[in-house]
Amino acid sequence: MKVLITTSSFGEVNDKPLQILKGAGFEVIKNTYKRKITQNELVLLLKGIQGVIAGLEYYDNNILSKSELKIISRCGSGITNIDLDAAKKLGIAVYNTPDGPTQSVAELTVGCLLSLIREVPCVNSLMHAGKWEKRTGHLLKGMNVLLIGYGKIGKTVAKILNVIGAKIIVCDPFVPIEDIPEYFTKVDLLRGVKKADLIVLHSSGEDLILGEMEFALMKPGVYILNAARGRLIDADILERSLISGKVAGAWLDTFSEEPYTGSLLKYNQVILTPHIGSYTEEGRYEMEIEAVNNLLLGFKIS
Amino acid sequence: MKVLITTSSFGEVNDKPLQILKGAGFEVIKNTYKRKITQNELVLLLKGIQGVIAGLEYYDNNILSKSELKIISRCGSGITNIDLDAAKKLGIAVYNTPDGPTQSVAELTVGCLLSLIREVPCVNSLMHAGKWEKRTGHLLKGMNVLLIGYGKIGKTVAKILNVIGAKIIVCDPFVPIEDIPEYFTKVDLLRGVKKADLIVLHSSGEDLILGEMEFALMKPGVYILNAARGRLIDADILERSLISGKVAGAWLDTFSEEPYTGSLLKYNQVILTPHIGSYTEEGRYEMEIEAVNNLLLGFKIS
Repeated sequence: MKVLITTSSFGEVNDKPLQILKGAGFEVIKNTYKRKITQNELVLLLKGIQGVIAGLEYYDNNILSKSELKIISRCGSGITNIDLDAAKKLGIAVYNTPDGPTQSVAELTVGCLLSLIREVPCVNSLMHAGKWEKRTGHLLKGMNVLLIGYGKIGKTVAKILNVIGAKIIVCDPFVPIEDIPEYFTKVDLLRGVKKADLIVLHSSGEDLILGEMEFALMKPGVYILNAARGRLIDADILERSLISGKVAGAWLDTFSEEPYTGSLLKYNQVILTPHIGSYTEEGRYEMEIEAVNNLLLGFKIS
Repeated sequence: MKVLITTSSFGEVNDKPLQILKGAGFEVIKNTYKRKITQNELVLLLKGIQGVIAGLEYYDNNILSKSELKIISRCGSGITNIDLDAAKKLGIAVYNTPDGPTQSVAELTVGCLLSLIREVPCVNSLMHAGKWEKRTGHLLKGMNVLLIGYGKIGKTVAKILNVIGAKIIVCDPFVPIEDIPEYFTKVDLLRGVKKADLIVLHSSGEDLILGEMEFALMKPGVYILNAARGRLIDADILERSLISGKVAGAWLDTFSEEPYTGSLLKYNQVILTPHIGSYTEEGRYEMEIEAVNNLLLGFKIS
């Protein structure tokens, strides 16, 4: 039986997940494009495939109906790229790895947050070019940090930022108030956006969250960080706000089109990372093992 | 009465500290070089000066004897740049601001640490140059982190890294074992260096700590971070170890000569920052106010 693996870096750190698949008798077809595959590439690659270890390419009704798929095992937590209703109707089982990326994304978020408010990538580039230019940044301690999305990743980030001394404000309509510690403030989106010195997106879904109205309410000098999905922020308004100085800086790890080649590349006050939230050797390995085990479970092999 | 201020950025964020000095009747002479002044510049600037708000320039016996100084008020915590015995003999009072930089240095250290193990400055530069190149980094969680120096800064960093999930190993001969939490490991230097996945220097003093023997004992792929003083690490051996790959990466905020223009500029796997550990608006302001108050206290004005 053939299994397609679309996540471009699968098995690179440690080939044990691939060995498990091969040991179970699978022929492995890999994504050799070194990037997210296009829909056309997906259609071609899916020919004769019953099981896929999936990335963030879209599995819509059209693609699913034409395929012979039995199992989609996401190597990652998000499954908004899969039409779950269509999959259910077609009898395709869908799995994900909800815990896999939590620690990796949380650590990258905290690192980029603290680097952003001290302009680390910027002074580092200057130093490497022989320029000793001190910049005065800001302390996280005492800042109002709005966390939009209080799932596994949001919770982990909140715990770390709280120990550093930030004042945590949580906005997540799906989390009951009793699940939020009493020393955090729970708010609705607009109230949170108004109060925040720094906004971090860790929410699920693909719908716009920071649009015209939200940007209008933000404090001057606010920082915006997005480790969730690119579409959650209006990139044009973000760019205008960076130019005007209303937004002091941003970190983006996700983009509405990837690889990202848009106009935010121009701004030094934006830290850009190529969707590497989950990219740690330790985290990837755990996630790949889990995705393989889910696939085997689906085929009733394990 | 004239007061000299040698710290190059004093009063830039908020001029209240300068206003307090002027309000108390002082004529303020500032360092206009925008960098650490040389010893010759210091001698010239000290003419007719009784009080100085001092940076890291050296106040040796020779300089102190020739001066009319009565008060040295360090804007910062370290006072190893002042010959305290000579100052005592000459009746010069020395003050510092021991708490001032703690939070700022700790936050920068955690930010640079988490950025280093994920290659953030590197992928950020590539992104800004239009190159989407994912890198797989490491998780801090589970790493053995050796903290050399468990003073105010070391303690603050340890607390944060512990919450993230690192295993904390402490080396500080001046801290009694009962001051170190039982869930941290206390070791001597060589044992610590052998065990560490990541080494962070937060010690005081100017003597070499990581030399030939220590580098020889380190694990391959170790990370080294220095937010203390440049001379604590043998820069030549560090460079050789970066070339060989024995050291996977480093962050340096302090250098034996500043501004730094040495050969470590060549290495992408080294994050370089221009001695900005204490450079936050909030932290600087508190430290400057404290340094001014210490100076006024010395002159019995407050």
